[in-house]
Amino acid sequence: MNGFRFAGIAAGIKKNGLKDLGLIYAEKPAVGAALFTRNKVVAAPVTLGRKTIADGRIQAILANSGNANCFTGEQGLADAKNTAETTARALGISPDLVMVSSTGVIGAPLPMEKFESGIPQVTAALVEGGLEDFSDAILTTDTCRKIVRRTGRIKTDSGAREFSILGIAKGSGMIRPDMATMLAYVLTDITIGAEDLKQALTHANERSFNRITVDGDTSTNDTLVCMASGEGEAIVGNEPSFAAFQTLLDEVCYDLAKMVVKDGEGATKVASITVKGAQSREDAFRASEAIAHSNLVKTAIYGEDPNWGRITAAAGRSGACVDQDRMDLYFGEVAIVRQGRWLGPEAEEKAAALMKKDEIDIILDLNLAEYSDHFLFCDFSENYVKINADYRT
Amino acid sequence: MNGFRFAGIAAGIKKNGLKDLGLIYAEKPAVGAALFTRNKVVAAPVTLGRKTIADGRIQAILANSGNANCFTGEQGLADAKNTAETTARALGISPDLVMVSSTGVIGAPLPMEKFESGIPQVTAALVEGGLEDFSDAILTTDTCRKIVRRTGRIKTDSGAREFSILGIAKGSGMIRPDMATMLAYVLTDITIGAEDLKQALTHANERSFNRITVDGDTSTNDTLVCMASGEGEAIVGNEPSFAAFQTLLDEVCYDLAKMVVKDGEGATKVASITVKGAQSREDAFRASEAIAHSNLVKTAIYGEDPNWGRITAAAGRSGACVDQDRMDLYFGEVAIVRQGRWLGPEAEEKAAALMKKDEIDIILDLNLAEYSDHFLFCDFSENYVKINADYRT
Repeated sequence: MNGFRFAGIAAGIKKNGLKDLGLIYAEKPAVGAALFTRNKVVAAPVTLGRKTIADGRIQAILANSGNANCFTGEQGLADAKNTAETTARALGISPDLVMVSSTGVIGAPLPMEKFESGIPQVTAALVEGGLEDFSDAILTTDTCRKIVRRTGRIKTDSGAREFSILGIAKGSGMIRPDMATMLAYVLTDITIGAEDLKQALTHANERSFNRITVDGDTSTNDTLVCMASGEGEAIVGNEPSFAAFQTLLDEVCYDLAKMVVKDGEGATKVASITVKGAQSREDAFRASEAIAHSNLVKTAIYGEDPNWGRITAAAGRSGACVDQDRMDLYFGEVAIVRQGRWLGPEAEEKAAALMKKDEIDIILDLNLAEYSDHFLFCDFSENYVKINADYRT
Repeated sequence: MNGFRFAGIAAGIKKNGLKDLGLIYAEKPAVGAALFTRNKVVAAPVTLGRKTIADGRIQAILANSGNANCFTGEQGLADAKNTAETTARALGISPDLVMVSSTGVIGAPLPMEKFESGIPQVTAALVEGGLEDFSDAILTTDTCRKIVRRTGRIKTDSGAREFSILGIAKGSGMIRPDMATMLAYVLTDITIGAEDLKQALTHANERSFNRITVDGDTSTNDTLVCMASGEGEAIVGNEPSFAAFQTLLDEVCYDLAKMVVKDGEGATKVASITVKGAQSREDAFRASEAIAHSNLVKTAIYGEDPNWGRITAAAGRSGACVDQDRMDLYFGEVAIVRQGRWLGPEAEEKAAALMKKDEIDIILDLNLAEYSDHFLFCDFSENYVKINADYRT
């Protein structure tokens, strides 16, 4: 992506010696927008980040794994400011243009000596091709990088022009939709105002990161940041070019969110639940959220069992208005319940065959009205328990 | 318990040949009260039970495991009525006095031929000492019987008199507080009106079954029934004797609820979370519920890790008003966080030692106002996943 450089190094923050300190740098101050966790317990970088992004301008993002700098009190906030200032000095820019993000263990103080020595190193390592190093530096229990690139076209007075969006995310556990999920960065070369960018990002987030779950726990550090370098075409709200940008941004965020779910702690399958025919938008959200969060549904998917009883029961307890005698349920194309009636062993066998796939689509039609919603989630295996029972040891 | 007889037999409803059909019978029609699941998808016996209990009188309860008779449509309701009528005929009483309960797999039709042959058998097997047989007949993934007996005393004009309460429950998975949990039966020899009994049962339920969770999924079959034989002393609302009865009923329900949590699917430890100092009753409920339901908190307890960051983060996402800089957190007597500050490695070591126990008490003081609430929950092990991935196969 033109206009951006990246780096990622091992600064000794993680005990295992892997990369743990990353930097994104825009050649010129970029227009920025960010969304943060709605958890009321928040990490120091989130508190600081809300201030940094307030003027809609950002030039660098310093991100570390191995320590979340959360529940670290006044010292944590001072440490976050300190790392932003050190980074700004190394880059020769204003501290107001540097955002910091942290992910990892909650409650331990930030090891400042590692940042003192690491920040000059990571700054010196900045290169255009450093994206994968940066991506590696923000992973925790993730088992793979999460990078999405897309190119779109918009019409201008002088013909069609290309623009690009690049997204990088991390996240595998403590994933529950209530704003962005853990850390995600989206970069674009478009020229856009801060208000328009915030609006576009909010729209994309609502349909992606706010519709996924791994384990139902909302992180204290969730952060989604978008930087627009202004190298390319100008985008203004309410124009066709804005729609083209929005569509591509939605896609990038959705694909990143899906990568997070796919790499969910212990996950072996990705599932989607679409609830249709609900009486209200909120009912569609509630029912799909309850199903996506149900440990019983998730363990059944792990067991490749089309356990429709658990799905309909989760909808029943969700608070949404439902009539069990009107429900239709499908696994992919296979109907297994119609008007509240199980369709028998043949339908069940067909559904069971579908469950062996890596991606499972479930559709619950409440047949009450026209509202729908959609969640992405993963199954639940013994490995989730293993990963999280031993996380701090 | 005077005035009641019990039986439990293997009728062939369960595939494994274990006991699966149980009967409780009161010598005379008893005063009855019942609470049912608030799940909007409900089993046929719950629909029927709501009608049966409406007049506050009940003489027999037929309960089966191996089949939940849920999501079985009109046929399921007809089958439930049919089993009640067959039981009434075998006992020579009115069908209006027979309640039926079912627990097990959702969605399969009730195997009526097993009931036709089983009901006369279980009726013939009724004896005063049949309590354990009955208890065995209602178990599914439970690994042990859940029976509580208590004796209380009330003052009467002619001196102190004893009264008894006997509770029997089943439940291990699909346990989340939204009314009673699965099947629980409480019997007493007290003389009481139906309205007073309902009031006392609601009070006891709110502090017991409605404050436990195993996996966050609300059953479609939850039922809590209380039968008062009227053999003993009379109890009227607002009298000291009512308070004595209420206290003992609360204890029996709490102990039964705790047994359910202790036998939670895959559980190795029982934990309690008390949230104090909340700004409202609802906030105390929300924060304690979010902590008790958190998979991250539950896996940490399984891993014997006093992971206070996950506990405070769960409170933060609960929707309750919290100020992270005022929180105090204790494991048993050991303070680990004070005014939002981690107390260091020595406190952590003491807390880690406590985590090796079978029962863990966690206290979170929000230090905002005076409201508190309390949940019982269990840890989360690989075995929960194993049990629920393979449940129907």
